[in-house]
This record gives sequence, structure tokens and C-alpha cells, in this order.
Amino acid sequence: MTEFFKGITPLRYDPSSTDLAFRHYNPDEIVMGKRMEEHLRFAVAYWHSFAWPGGDPFGGETFERPWFGNTMDLARMKADVAFEMFDLLNVPFFCWHDADIRPEGDSFAESLRNFEEIIDYLGAKMDGAKTKLLWGTANMFSHRRFMSGAATNPDPDVFAWSAATVKACMDATHKLDGQNYVLWGGREGYETLLNTDMKRERQNAGRFLQMAVEYKHKIGFKGAILVEPKPQEPSKHQYDYDVATVYGFLKDYGLEDEVQMNIEQGHAILAGHSFEHELALASSLGIFGSIDMNRNDYQSGWDTDQFPNNTPEVALAYYEVIKAGGFTTGGTNFDAKLRRQSLDAQDLIAAHAGAMDICARGFKAAVAMTEDGTLEAMRQDRYAGWDTSDAKAMLASDFSSIAERVASTGIDPAPRSGKQEILENIVNRFV
Amino acid sequence: MTEFFKGITPLRYDPSSTDLAFRHYNPDEIVMGKRMEEHLRFAVAYWHSFAWPGGDPFGGETFERPWFGNTMDLARMKADVAFEMFDLLNVPFFCWHDADIRPEGDSFAESLRNFEEIIDYLGAKMDGAKTKLLWGTANMFSHRRFMSGAATNPDPDVFAWSAATVKACMDATHKLDGQNYVLWGGREGYETLLNTDMKRERQNAGRFLQMAVEYKHKIGFKGAILVEPKPQEPSKHQYDYDVATVYGFLKDYGLEDEVQMNIEQGHAILAGHSFEHELALASSLGIFGSIDMNRNDYQSGWDTDQFPNNTPEVALAYYEVIKAGGFTTGGTNFDAKLRRQSLDAQDLIAAHAGAMDICARGFKAAVAMTEDGTLEAMRQDRYAGWDTSDAKAMLASDFSSIAERVASTGIDPAPRSGKQEILENIVNRFV
Amino acid sequence: MTEFFKGITPLRYDPSSTDLAFRHYNPDEIVMGKRMEEHLRFAVAYWHSFAWPGGDPFGGETFERPWFGNTMDLARMKADVAFEMFDLLNVPFFCWHDADIRPEGDSFAESLRNFEEIIDYLGAKMDGAKTKLLWGTANMFSHRRFMSGAATNPDPDVFAWSAATVKACMDATHKLDGQNYVLWGGREGYETLLNTDMKRERQNAGRFLQMAVEYKHKIGFKGAILVEPKPQEPSKHQYDYDVATVYGFLKDYGLEDEVQMNIEQGHAILAGHSFEHELALASSLGIFGSIDMNRNDYQSGWDTDQFPNNTPEVALAYYEVIKAGGFTTGGTNFDAKLRRQSLDAQDLIAAHAGAMDICARGFKAAVAMTEDGTLEAMRQDRYAGWDTSDAKAMLASDFSSIAERVASTGIDPAPRSGKQEILENIVNRFV
Amino acid sequence: MTEFFKGITPLRYDPSSTDLAFRHYNPDEIVMGKRMEEHLRFAVAYWHSFAWPGGDPFGGETFERPWFGNTMDLARMKADVAFEMFDLLNVPFFCWHDADIRPEGDSFAESLRNFEEIIDYLGAKMDGAKTKLLWGTANMFSHRRFMSGAATNPDPDVFAWSAATVKACMDATHKLDGQNYVLWGGREGYETLLNTDMKRERQNAGRFLQMAVEYKHKIGFKGAILVEPKPQEPSKHQYDYDVATVYGFLKDYGLEDEVQMNIEQGHAILAGHSFEHELALASSLGIFGSIDMNRNDYQSGWDTDQFPNNTPEVALAYYEVIKAGGFTTGGTNFDAKLRRQSLDAQDLIAAHAGAMDICARGFKAAVAMTEDGTLEAMRQDRYAGWDTSDAKAMLASDFSSIAERVASTGIDPAPRSGKQEILENIVNRFV
Ligand SMILES: [Co+2]
Ligand SMILES: [Co+2]
Ligand SMILES: [Co+2]
Ligand SMILES: [Co+2]
Ligand SMILES: [Co+2]
Ligand SMILES: [Co+2]
Ligand SMILES: [Co+2]
Ligand SMILES: [Co+2]
Repeated sequence: MTEFFKGITPLRYDPSSTDLAFRHYNPDEIVMGKRMEEHLRFAVAYWHSFAWPGGDPFGGETFERPWFGNTMDLARMKADVAFEMFDLLNVPFFCWHDADIRPEGDSFAESLRNFEEIIDYLGAKMDGAKTKLLWGTANMFSHRRFMSGAATNPDPDVFAWSAATVKACMDATHKLDGQNYVLWGGREGYETLLNTDMKRERQNAGRFLQMAVEYKHKIGFKGAILVEPKPQEPSKHQYDYDVATVYGFLKDYGLEDEVQMNIEQGHAILAGHSFEHELALASSLGIFGSIDMNRNDYQSGWDTDQFPNNTPEVALAYYEVIKAGGFTTGGTNFDAKLRRQSLDAQDLIAAHAGAMDICARGFKAAVAMTEDGTLEAMRQDRYAGWDTSDAKAMLASDFSSIAERVASTGIDPAPRSGKQEILENIVNRFV
Repeated sequence: MTEFFKGITPLRYDPSSTDLAFRHYNPDEIVMGKRMEEHLRFAVAYWHSFAWPGGDPFGGETFERPWFGNTMDLARMKADVAFEMFDLLNVPFFCWHDADIRPEGDSFAESLRNFEEIIDYLGAKMDGAKTKLLWGTANMFSHRRFMSGAATNPDPDVFAWSAATVKACMDATHKLDGQNYVLWGGREGYETLLNTDMKRERQNAGRFLQMAVEYKHKIGFKGAILVEPKPQEPSKHQYDYDVATVYGFLKDYGLEDEVQMNIEQGHAILAGHSFEHELALASSLGIFGSIDMNRNDYQSGWDTDQFPNNTPEVALAYYEVIKAGGFTTGGTNFDAKLRRQSLDAQDLIAAHAGAMDICARGFKAAVAMTEDGTLEAMRQDRYAGWDTSDAKAMLASDFSSIAERVASTGIDPAPRSGKQEILENIVNRFV
Repeated sequence: MTEFFKGITPLRYDPSSTDLAFRHYNPDEIVMGKRMEEHLRFAVAYWHSFAWPGGDPFGGETFERPWFGNTMDLARMKADVAFEMFDLLNVPFFCWHDADIRPEGDSFAESLRNFEEIIDYLGAKMDGAKTKLLWGTANMFSHRRFMSGAATNPDPDVFAWSAATVKACMDATHKLDGQNYVLWGGREGYETLLNTDMKRERQNAGRFLQMAVEYKHKIGFKGAILVEPKPQEPSKHQYDYDVATVYGFLKDYGLEDEVQMNIEQGHAILAGHSFEHELALASSLGIFGSIDMNRNDYQSGWDTDQFPNNTPEVALAYYEVIKAGGFTTGGTNFDAKLRRQSLDAQDLIAAHAGAMDICARGFKAAVAMTEDGTLEAMRQDRYAGWDTSDAKAMLASDFSSIAERVASTGIDPAPRSGKQEILENIVNRFV
Repeated sequence: MTEFFKGITPLRYDPSSTDLAFRHYNPDEIVMGKRMEEHLRFAVAYWHSFAWPGGDPFGGETFERPWFGNTMDLARMKADVAFEMFDLLNVPFFCWHDADIRPEGDSFAESLRNFEEIIDYLGAKMDGAKTKLLWGTANMFSHRRFMSGAATNPDPDVFAWSAATVKACMDATHKLDGQNYVLWGGREGYETLLNTDMKRERQNAGRFLQMAVEYKHKIGFKGAILVEPKPQEPSKHQYDYDVATVYGFLKDYGLEDEVQMNIEQGHAILAGHSFEHELALASSLGIFGSIDMNRNDYQSGWDTDQFPNNTPEVALAYYEVIKAGGFTTGGTNFDAKLRRQSLDAQDLIAAHAGAMDICARGFKAAVAMTEDGTLEAMRQDRYAGWDTSDAKAMLASDFSSIAERVASTGIDPAPRSGKQEILENIVNRFV
């Protein structure tokens, strides 16, 4: 045991606790026929919780973790602390980037050796632990070599470096029995159109994603390939702007049946959408995969990556997840960072515990809304006219015949109330 | 002649004028082998200039036009004034919605009779005039029957009404020899997901657009079908959010070779994009069509539809239009309204003249940037590495072989400057 | 009784109801020593509920109320329906603009006669009713005469018209024993700086507000004068931008002890602030007065004026209201409109009932947070260092002596955790 | 001479150059009776140009400057390079934070020694150079000790540290004959209201600013004290939100005649204002001081600090500066950073040269607009009614007498056109 979480004991489920405990999340509670743990599939993000030093654009490191530094020993200490937290929180999953877990080497080969060694170290730890890998991913945005993109870099050598990197990360994810592999294109975009060949960059990105899918099949990785949309920050514009944009991209490269979405609330907001919108859209397009359940501040125009804290919002999100059929390989990742003034080990535990509780509350509310059925019944009733054979026949016909019918029958459609406030009241009976 | 523009004489090209005149727009000036008029293809929007009363969400009519009212006589007077303005401005095109030009009747049939009569009246006026029809479109958002959508309405009868309406508008556009037919889905979206079946609505919208394309071919209309993206306002979310979103939608319904984009600067901004972005994206996807050259206020979160007034912005937009090959059936429409305090006939003329001048300045700057070639040469040079056979071979290969090469050759790609400020300085030599 | 609410019976408190009822709001429940009704002081806004036709920038009237029209008879029917709703909801207060309640006349004198007659009609209704007037106000933004402002109009005659209007509205508010008089300057601002003399307009606005305060004292009106900040919409920029801006304005005209704030959640958001921020700031400046508890959609850039529906948000707002000492003359007004698709009488009742419930839940949560005391204790503890005599002495000293002490004692202040996530978890124990 | 700018020769004025040169900025050109250099008073910001490593929230250092590191030798090399750039650009001013120019020491005392030594080094360089100090300021936001604020920190020791720091920076600014001293409160604000005592923090900030003003008078510093508003980033909310907010704050602490504004375009935009707005407001409140002429990207919600590149925008800003009387102690600072992909020494020179050119073009356009006088004449004419003795008498009267006059004379004010588009066209004759 390291000293970092000294004095903090494993969190238990205790609805009346005012201390570090779960007041709502009981992993063993059965809802809709399954344990809460299996529904929610919580994951801790290695980067924000263990690798991020607390900087922002106007300030440097605020966290002073004993494992900060670029050596293998420190990387192992970091892994030890991480698994201690996973145990305290009893989380079933975690996620990493290559750069979170291994020290950067002086060459690709050295970085790879470091990475493979740490993967083995993690694998050994996982053997004796409950926590599994939800997904792995490659950090292709922090190092200066990626400043102009990874797959979309003007320099083909960076494409090559990126391909080799993703291969290594997919291999490691496969080895650790990860449930998914994620791609996030923080530098796949542009700062100015003046120096950008958008068509070419988009093509290279499309080819890169095809290669990732081809490689998945080659190695027999059974997890899902996920893309995480985000509109901007760090780039002025990123190609994986939002679910709708990625969908068009997948269609163009024949990947709509191969790739799913990892949707983050904060990124939805940056793109001008509600989280529910992105979830409902992905579901209706058949590409829903997993979620990053971290919110943005509504008054800030950048990615604040805060732990969720608003039950009604979370409930509406899980309501869409349930309508989409729930998670299969996906789960609820917290791509969330402590506020940089939250310095203590206790803050790290409390933040995750509070988030897990909010998710549990929200999920149970969403289940209740689903099981009650009023909302869905009212929604279906609104469209009942479209279930008639006349309506179906009209859809199969053409403008001329429809126009003829309009002319001959003299229809005058009467608006019906959309009942938005009543529906919102119904939601509030459950949250 | 009506009295409305009394005292205003046709505007002439006079670079040194401080009065109502064109200081930059000379329709007969030849650039890139064509007259300016044929490059820019200016159009006046009937709705904002002749039908909009000056209201906003907190105030009613400020304009008191003698033709306001719901009779055929007033509709004809409105048409007379409109053509007088077209003559004063010497614009080659105009655009309309059905609801702009004809009085609403008590039934579909009566509205249609009014519409057809006015179309004939417009046709007769066009016979003796220079001004042609850039595009027609149907207003399926103002009347309360469309409050829950047109093609995406929960009531199939509204779909039918809409189909009959678009048919009539396409017929009229064809009759008047319009260059394009536009669809804008201001109510095709939702106010709340709670009452919305997004999947079904999207399917109905897809089928509706297919029907429009089928009808175009049936009647032999040779113009382009254009869709105008806008993210929100009036709805909370509209399905034609932006170019990328519409592209995915077109792919889903097999329409990407049949439908092009009518891109508005203000709508680009509402969607979180620059105008140039939307233009460049549409061009790279092969779906660029036409533009609505009206800006949004950068500090307002709604669609202000202002006349353009910033030359550098307009120049960057036309630079993308030129890179896209210029307009074929498309043109430069001003979907712009006077500020509601701009009460006078003179304001209406001055606003258009100023906008046309800004466009002419911007276009000539874009031509100069193009003909100079430095910008494009620098851009191409940045990607030169991708033109090598090695790079092409890499794209055709796979992760494993790339990773092998990275491992064996020990590449260490060195970042090269993106030169953004230098490129911006070059632009500023031309604007 | 009119027919409008036919079939709807007065709403009762019934926590388990799934019908039109209050599930959380029990006016007679005692918390913190007072009845809920006296804490919350709910008010219905006449304009949105009875005068607004359902239009938006792209569509016209959707509501077809039997009292729409510009006659005295219809104005009386509107008042009858309004008081029927007040009874159904059992609300203690309502609010009006002059333009909501009386038909516009052809002259100032005629409008005033209409107004005074309706005021008497309302007075008679109030005699037999529970519902009192929370505040009156003047609509000086809808009519075209106000298009360039009221007190800030370039035309002194509009200033005069506005002064006479506010006088009449203050007289009527006084007569009906209103608790406050509100000024909202929707047109006191500008569309373009190019035609605006900001200094002069600000001075005229300052003088106008002084006159209102002088008139209040002259007639012996004991209620508070409230200003409602809003940054934009309808104008590009309004002078009463936010609480901080209005505070500087009040200081300039010696009115900071005479005028308080009516703070609306939606307007806070448009100004880039959270609602809590505006409330906390007004409280810390000593100018907190009343609230408009209607939210904005976080993805829309305009004033959506929606009924509140998020308990945690509402709880944080009331937590600040409680810290500010609660309402004295102020109250909880719903400056909220139905979504324009919510056509039915039932929608109107349900929307208010749902909002009152959310407010009751939020208020009770805020009371619990307050009575628990942990949050406030942690906050006070964070600043404990400032309560020492050394810290107070330092504040009374100067840079030189402080610098000397820093040099001589070699301090090295150690950051302490801000505990944001822990505090958010504590809030979530109560909401 | 260092090697950094090797091959770059001093930039000259050459309107037809396509190379590194000034195409518009001729320091010796006389406009409005003064040399351009004396009007514009350009300043280079030490931090962005010499201390910023190119990081962003998702990536680290991209610039690899030979002077990066934390030693006195490197600090001197940095100063040498800086003055070489000042010479190449022929800029009359520069600006610094303490942290830009000296290595951080292990204690306050050591940092102070480093600082004083570098100040002497800079002083010596300035003796032989043209470039003077526009302003100095203290970086009280980057180090973790300031994470919860400087003057507003919950820990009084941080207030003390900050006071000692500002004293040292004011001493140094005075010693180097700086024209102004600036305070920017990037951490003076909050992340969450839950742990914040806004009233107390505001009072401490007020007292701190008073101390700074008192110290200025004590040491006989003749320059202006400037506050630079910014709404958010890095904090969720900063107390110096915008000009209007700071004005109320100054009024509260009796500082409105002692402190002026340093207004940055990017910060205006983040606060929801145009740059012109903030300038015009500061001018009308009598607190205009200086400008940071760096823009924000309109599609990004954070502080992008880009070099200006849009002539019409810059012209409208300088038009307000001219109306405010031009600069006295203030000037045109570029608080602008290269894009992080602009790696080369040439990028740094080109960015500044382009910005200076844009400012020169914009300023000359603003002069032409001013000298032409049409805009101002139209603006004054709009308010002519207010110059009559009747209007003045009305302002000195009261509601009762005005209402009497309205009743007796039956006024019916007629709206007059605001002519916004015509005014915008006039601007476009000059830009
Ligand atoms: Co994020
Ligand atoms: Co994420
Ligand atoms: Co528009
Ligand atoms: Co348009
Ligand atoms: Co509002
Ligand atoms: Co309000
Ligand atoms: Co800035
Ligand atoms: Co600045």
C-alpha cells in the first residue's frame, strides 16, 4: 500500500451517511433485471485522476503527487495508487492513454518498450483485482510532433508514427482484454483554413480509421471501435465535430457498421447540443456506444471536464441510454478532472463517489420513467397517425398524387398541443 | 411607377460618389474572364425587403409599407415596388417564398389560386425586366399549422399539405425559369426530445426530400435542389444543422449527388463555424451550391440577418467560392433585413447597394489572392510529402507494415511552422 | 365563470397525485418559522400567460384565445380568465404591464382612459380575491414609438411620453396596493454605436430613474423600485446589462439605496452569469429585491423564458435568496411563457403548477442546506484567517509595511484545497 | 547579437513590398498633427513573445527557444533577444510581468533579488535603445500559491505576498520610467460560489487597489494605474468582468478618478461586448486608458490572444480611441501570442509587423472618418432635439409636470430612421 490514500477506507453503500460513502449507488441492487454495477459500468480515467498536474492556460501545476516524473519507477507507483483508488471505489473499469501510464522515451522504440513493460505491470495488477479495462486509447495530441495533427498531419511521417502508436495501443488493449478501443482526434482539425487542405486531411483520417478497423479484425479484437466527437479545443475546428458530423464521415468510408460513438456531455455542449440530443441521435443512427459522463460549465466556453452533479440532467441522459438498449461493450467513464484547487487525496475519492452517486440516482430515475411508461406512451400517441396504412401509402407515393388528394379533399390540419411542460412535469415526478 | 422610391434614380457605378451609387460594383467589369455580374449573381430576397414588417420578439411592426395587407391588389402593388427596386439596383436575380408574394387564402385551394395568379403577374413583369428568378421556396414555418414541423410533423396531413405546397412552388419556379429550388427546414426539428421521435422524423424528412428530387426530374426542372442548413431558431434544434450534418443525411437517403447546399453566413455562425468553413467543407464534399451573404452579429445569439459590411470576411468567403469553381446555378442572395429602425425607402436601397459593393470589393480581393497564387502555393507545399509515392503506398498499406517501418527506421518527425500569421498578412495585402 | 378552464378544478396539495395537483407545494407548510406561501410569494405574469399570442421570429400566433383583440370587452374577459387561473392555482400575486391589460388607444389620452378603467376593474376583482399585485410595470418596448428607446430616445417627446406612462403605471400600482414597481429597459440600449450618443443616453436614463424615485416619494408609494437587468435582446446592447452594470449606474445617480434588482435566471445566463451569481452579487451589494424564476435554454442564445424545471438549480438560487434574508417586498414571479406548441388551457395550468412545485422543492432543499449549516461553516472556515487582528491590521496598513514584513518573516503561503467537489456532494444530499 | 533573428534585417516602410516590411505603418507620417508613432504607441508584450512555450490545455511546449529555463543567464539572453526584436520592429514600447523577465527563486527574497537584477539589466539596455516601458505588471496567477486568488485569497498571507509583489513591480516600473502600471486579476474571482465569500473578497480587492493607488502617490509615480477587465478564464468568474463592472467597483472604493481601463478586444468579446463598446463606455465614464489590441477567434469560447488582422474592426476601435481624445499615457499593446504551430523566428517578426500594419491602416481610416465628419454630424443631428431649452427644462422637471404637458398637448412622437446601413456604408468608404 502507498501512503497516498492513508486513512481512507473502502467506500460502502450507506444511504444515511454524511461521510465518504455511497448514498445512492449500491452495485448489487437489481433494477430491470440486472445489478446496478452491470448497468452503469463505471470507469475511472487514468489521465485526469493520476497524470494531470492541475494546470490551466494561465497557471501551472497545483497538484504535487509523489508519482509525478518521467521514470518507470514512478509509473509503477502511479499504477499502484490507481489500483488502490479503484479498490476504494469498487469501480469495475478504468481507461488509459499510452502517455498516461508510461514515461515518454527518447525514441518511438523506447516509448514502446516502456509502454509494454507497464502494460504487463497493469496486467499483473488486474489479475488480482476486480477492475477491468473499459478502453484504451492513444494520446496523439500532447507531444509537439502532433501539433499539426496525427492522421491528418501534413507530414506523412507523423501519420506513420500515429499508425504505429495506435497499433501498439490496440495490441495492449487486446492483451488486457479491454472492452473497447477509442479514438479521439483532438489535433485532427485545423487552426486556420489558410494552410489547410480539408479534403485531403479528411481522406487521410478516413483511411486511418479504416486501417484501425482492419487491424481490429486482423488481431481478432472483439471490442468496439469508438470515436469520441468534440467540436473544438484544442483545435479551432476538429473533424469529429459531433455525432452527426462523424456519421457522415463514417458513411463516406463505409464504417457506419464498424464504429460507434463515445459521447461526452461536455463535448455535446461545446457543439451546441444537449447531451440527450447526441445520445438520441447516435441511437437513432445505430452508432451509440459509450459515454463520458462529465459535464461542462454552462458559462464557460471551453472543456471544463467536471464531475457530474445534476441529477435531472443525468437522468435524461440515462433515459436515452436505456432507450438505446443500454450499454453492451460501453460504460460510464468519468473523463473528469478535479478542480485544480481540489488538492487532497480525499477530494479525488469524494469527486468520484459523488459522481457515481449522481449517476445511480439518475439511472434509477430513468428506469422509473421507463417502467412507468407514461412519457413513452404520450410520445408514441403523438405520432399515431403515421402508423396508419394511409400514411404509409403516402410515404410510398409522390408529390403529384399527394397534391391531388390535398386539392380534392380540402384538408385543413389542426395543430395539437405538444404538451412540453406536462412532459417536463412527468419527468420531475421521477428525478 | 409607384411612389415608394420617389426621388431615387437608378444607381450607377461611380467610385468617387458619396451618394447612392456603387463605388466598387461595376457589373460589366471583367475579372477572370467574366463580367462581375455573372460572377456574383446578386439576388434580392422578397421576404425581408418587401414582406417583413420590422417586428422582433419584443416589438411589433415598425415599417408601414403601403402594400401591407392580405389582398391581391396589395400583392400586386408589392410586386410593382419590388421590380422598381430591382431596376434601381440593376440586380440580375430575386428569390421568393410562396407566402411572400401571395395573400394567404382560407383554404389550400384559395392560397394556391392566389399564388398562381401572382406567379403569372410576376412572369409578366419578368418578361420586360432584366431580373430573373434565382430560386423559389415554400414558407412552411410561419403559419401555425407548421408549428410542429412540415415534413416532420406528427400529423401526416401536414406532410401532405407540405408536399402539395412544395409541388406548387416547384411548378412555379420551373415556370418562371428559376435557377434553383431551395428547401429550408425552420420547423423541421424539435423543441423537446421528450415528445419527439427523432428517428421517424428524420426518415420522413428523408423521404420528403427524395420526393422533391423525384418531382424535379418528373417535370424536367433543370435547376439545382438546394438545402439551407441552420442549427436552431426557430426550433431548439433543426435537423439541417450545418453542412456536415446535412451531408450525412443526404448519404443516408442517396441524395448526395442530387442536392447541394445554400450556405448562409449567419447560420454558419449560429452553428459554431466560420462561413469559410461551411463553404470549404461543402466544396470538399462536392455539394456546394449557392450562398446567402448575410451576416450575424457576433455578440447576438440569434439570426440577425444583417447585410454584409466587412470586406475581409467577404473576401475569404469568395476565396472559397472561387476554389469551389464559382457559381453555376447558384448566386449571392441577400437573405438580409434592414434593421427595424431603418424606416425609409432610401435605407432599403442603400443597404443593398452597400452590400453589393462589399461583395464586389471582397470578390475582387479574392480574385487577386487567387491570381497571385502565393497562398495556394504555400498550402500545397505544406502537403507536398503526401504527393510522394511512398506516402501513397503507405495509405494503401496497413498498421502492421507501417509499424514495422517505424520500428526499423527510427523516424522522428520534426514539426514545421504552420505560418498562420504570415498567411494572414498575405491575405491582408489583397483586402 | 368563463369557459376557458372548464373541467379544471382548483389544484390541491397531494404528494402522490399523478394528475393536476401540487406534489411539493403546500402553501401552509411552515419552514423557518413562516408559511411556504409567505416565503415564496409566487406571482403570475399577465403578459406571457394572457397576452402573448405564441409568435416567434419565424412564426405567428399559435394560441387562439377568445379574448384576443383590442377592445375593452375583451380586456375584461381576459381579466376574468386571469383571475380564474389565479384561483385555480391559489397564487398570492400577479404582475402586469399597462399594455397587457388595456387596449391601446389612438392617443395617449385614450390609452390612459382605457388603462384607468381596467385598473378599476382589476381593483374590483382583487377585492373579492386572494391574489394581490406583486408589481406593475410599463411596456415601453413593443410599440414602434419606442423603437429607439423610451427614456434614452433621441426624441425628447418619447421621453415625455415615457415619463407620463410610468407616472400612470406608478399611480395604478399604488392604487392597487402593489408591492413593487419595476422598470425594464428593453429598448434602453443601442443597435449600433454609429448612431448612438452613449453618454447622453445614459444620463437621460439616470435622470429618468431619479424622477421615478422622486415620484414614488411624492405619492407616498411604499413599495420598492426595482430594475430588471438584461444584456441584450431586443437591443444589441441594453444599458441595464447585469447586476454589476446597474450597480455602477445607480452609484452614478445616487440611487443605490433607492433601487433594487429584479433578477431573472434567463437574463443572468444571457449575460454570461449563473443565476446564483447575480443573486449573490446583488445581495453583497445590498440591492437584492425580487426574482423572475424562469430559465433559458442553455443551447439557445435568446430569451426563451421557460418555466423552471431543474430542482438543483432552483435550490441553489433560493439558497442565495435565503442568505440575502429572503424576500421582503419581492417574490417569485414566473416571467415564463408556454412553449408555443402548448396550446391548451391545461398546459397553462400544468406549467405553473410544475414550476411552483419545483420552486417548493428547491426552496425546501435550500432551507435544509441552511439549517444543516455544513456548507456555510466550511465557507466561513476557509476565510477564518481574515478574522484575526493581524489580518485586519494588514488591511489598514500599506504596501511598504506589508512588504517589509514579507521580507523579514519569509512567509511561504501553502495552498489549501478548495474542496469544490465535496461541497457539491453536500448540496446533493439536500436536493 | 544573438543568433535568433539571424538573417532578418530591420523592417522598413515599403508600401509595395511583398517581404518582411511595413506596407502601411510609417512611424514618421503626420496625421492629425502628430507622428503615427506617437499616436499608436505600439508595445510588445514580453510574456507571449518571449516566455510562452506554446502549450495549450491539451498539449505542451512547441517552441524550443534557446533561452527557456530558469537561470539568470537565460533571463539575460531572453532580454537580449527581446531588445533585438524591438530594434527590428522599431517599436517604441514594451511591457512585462515580473515572472516573464526573471527566474522564480526559492523564496520571495530570492525572486526579488533576481527581479531587481534583471530590472537593472533591462534599464541598461534601455539606455542605449529607443524602446521604453509602456507598463509593468505582476504575474499573480501562474504560481500555485495564487490558485485561490491574490488580493482575494482566503489566506491573508497571499494578500501580503501579493502586496509585496506589486510594490516591487511598481518600484521597478517607476525606476524604468514606465508610462503606466497595470493590474489584471486573473485569479481574483471564483470557481464556485459554494466556497466563496464574494462580499469579503470584493472588499479585499478594493482595499488592495486603494493601497496600490496610495503607494503610487507615495513614491511619486506619475504614470496611470490601469485595470484590465476580463470576465472569465482562468477563473469561472473574475471580479473585473468588464468596463461597466469595474466602474461600479471603482465608485465603491472612491477610485474612479485614480484608475483607468486597459481594454483588450478579446476580453471584450468574452464578456459579450464588441471592442468598440468597451472603448466607448470607458470613454463616456471618463476611465479610458490604454488598449491590448489582440483579437479573439469568434468561434472559440476562450482567450485566443491573436494578433489583429481585420482592418474594419481595428478602424472602429481607433475611431472610439480618437473620440476619447487618443492616448495620453496609454498605447497599443499586443497582448498577442503566435499560434503554437508558428515556430519560427520569422513568424514572430511577421506577426508583429502585420499587426502594426493593420493598426496603421485602421488608425488612418479612423482619422479619415473623423476628419470627414459625416458620421459624427449625423449622430449629433439625431439628438438635436435634446439641445433645445425645452428638453433641458424637461430633464430638470418631474413626472407630474411632464405628464400634464403630454395630456394637454396630445403629442404623438413619430419614429425617425436610425439609418444604420447608411452609416455602415459611410464607414466602408474609409476602411
Ligand atoms: Co472533455
Ligand atoms: Co472524453
Ligand atoms: Co438567417
Ligand atoms: Co438564408
Ligand atoms: Co426574459
Ligand atoms: Co423578466
Ligand atoms: Co487575453
Ligand atoms: Co490583455
